Amino acid sequence: MPRMTILTEAELRSVVTLDLDAVACVETAFHALATKAVAMPPIMRLDIPEYRGEVDVKTAYVPGIDGFAIKISPGFFNNPKLGLPSVNGMMVLLSSRTGLVEALLLDNGYLTDVRTAAAGAVAAKHLSRPSSSVAAIFGAGVQARLQLEALTLIRPITEARIWARDSDKARGAAHELTKKLGFLVTPVVDPEHAVRGADIIVTTTPSSEPILKSTWLQPGQHITAMGSDAEHKNELDPAIIAQADLYVADSLSQTRKLGELHHAIESGLVKTDAIFSELGFIIAGSAKGRPSAEAITIADLTGTGVQDTAIATLARDRAREANAGTNFES
Amino acid sequence: MPRMTILTEAELRSVVTLDLDAVACVETAFHALATKAVAMPPIMRLDIPEYRGEVDVKTAYVPGIDGFAIKISPGFFNNPKLGLPSVNGMMVLLSSRTGLVEALLLDNGYLTDVRTAAAGAVAAKHLSRPSSSVAAIFGAGVQARLQLEALTLIRPITEARIWARDSDKARGAAHELTKKLGFLVTPVVDPEHAVRGADIIVTTTPSSEPILKSTWLQPGQHITAMGSDAEHKNELDPAIIAQADLYVADSLSQTRKLGELHHAIESGLVKTDAIFSELGFIIAGSAKGRPSAEAITIADLTGTGVQDTAIATLARDRAREANAGTNFES
Repeated sequence: MPRMTILTEAELRSVVTLDLDAVACVETAFHALATKAVAMPPIMRLDIPEYRGEVDVKTAYVPGIDGFAIKISPGFFNNPKLGLPSVNGMMVLLSSRTGLVEALLLDNGYLTDVRTAAAGAVAAKHLSRPSSSVAAIFGAGVQARLQLEALTLIRPITEARIWARDSDKARGAAHELTKKLGFLVTPVVDPEHAVRGADIIVTTTPSSEPILKSTWLQPGQHITAMGSDAEHKNELDPAIIAQADLYVADSLSQTRKLGELHHAIESGLVKTDAIFSELGFIIAGSAKGRPSAEAITIADLTGTGVQDTAIATLARDRAREANAGTNFES
Repeated sequence: MPRMTILTEAELRSVVTLDLDAVACVETAFHALATKAVAMPPIMRLDIPEYRGEVDVKTAYVPGIDGFAIKISPGFFNNPKLGLPSVNGMMVLLSSRTGLVEALLLDNGYLTDVRTAAAGAVAAKHLSRPSSSVAAIFGAGVQARLQLEALTLIRPITEARIWARDSDKARGAAHELTKKLGFLVTPVVDPEHAVRGADIIVTTTPSSEPILKSTWLQPGQHITAMGSDAEHKNELDPAIIAQADLYVADSLSQTRKLGELHHAIESGLVKTDAIFSELGFIIAGSAKGRPSAEAITIADLTGTGVQDTAIATLARDRAREANAGTNFES
């Protein structure tokens, strides 16, 4: 009788937090993506236009990791009218050796939040200036908060600005983050003001047109764009990608289709088959990171199955140690 | 708090059986595939060669059905050495309206067995002669048994033959089926003998080279090939497809890549872009079924996501009626 562990969101929140272990496990996953025979099929996508619904399924097998996750991420944008969250999801963790289901991670998207923020930390660790202390965050949702928190794990952040289309939300997030992080987080009304003097800029919005202009950028800045995970989403002025000193993808095959790069290609500023580096190559040392203190660098993050496999196995291991979850036989 | 029902294999076996309801629900799914704006993304496939493992993920949204299944089907062919079954699997049933997970169907592949056999019944219902009474089954596994059982639901079967590479297994299956079905099921050593005089031939093996020869066929026979669900699998002599009076796919885009058709195309006997009918069009009446009593017909079944969505929603409905399963909040 196959036996599996079921972990609820509350249990997962108690065993996995956004910390240096989570960052390290995602960094290791990107390293593997660049150096090992990782199997990561294209994202499976199902659209249900009647209900403004979309479902992404991601998976990746990483040699050396004894489990692999299959993640189901639904986004149904009529849900708020029904009093339900738009985004949900769960992961199934299978044994790499036997294919048996080891754990059902009913995380409602929590583990995705953590691994996405952790990827932001990994990108900033390898691309931003080590002395980076000022962060600008675009957006005021869960990722806006977590991305800033992730930066504090790897850079000496002492000041942050938040810009969001909805100023009230920016104010709310800034207030909360100031309390939580112990330094001043300021809501700003003009996005250009947020960018001026920032060392690291993170865009976390679902925008479908550029919110960050190329003319605002200053030498030495690092930009992580993590809001674009679908063809129509676009946060960066395509000129930024054409002009940057270093553009880095989480997965080049994905960013050509889904990421900011996709829009730079569509606008004709970048050639379809132009070669760019991937984060894993920089982590592995086979490609160069930040070229100079003055360089403008970009990380284009669309989310990869290896991150899910990494965080799901971390969750399973932590749950085992803590004896958390419900065992189930089938 | 999202709430879901978890159903174990034992619970699913008690609420869903291979019966006329299961056949009808799969028939309706094929009808929808041909007539509605079904969303059925390509199968997601992950290979783990180190452990002879493969995982397929299938899904389909059928307008009018209030849930859709995401099915995870692992096959790990070193498992028997570890005392474990090669094939496992589960389905996640999500609401078509909200994307919330409604049920986790921990069926270990049982529902796939039922919906696959039900598709065999649907194919025979629309393609075999109504008077068909003699069946020949290739293979002696679970599907061999279920496919014969499925035929008895829709045709007046009074005799069957079973051929399998392993004669002992053929004998065992024949003995069991004779007892269960109440008519004589004979194990045969020579596959040509199984075919001679049969009205319906069903191939259910994982063979990677043809086991059914074109020269053995006789006018009026219907063949359902359901063993081929991966590029390398091949049960029918490609000449059979070139010579048949009617070839029908479950999904033409799939059989061109995975099914028997794929091998006929590879061998040069059928053109890459040759157009063939699909089962759903015949069910819907927009394409013709069996052209004459003497025609040789073929159904090439690779398995489709709409079948999974159909059987998963049937299982959920039956479980609700029977108050079966465990409710879980996350």
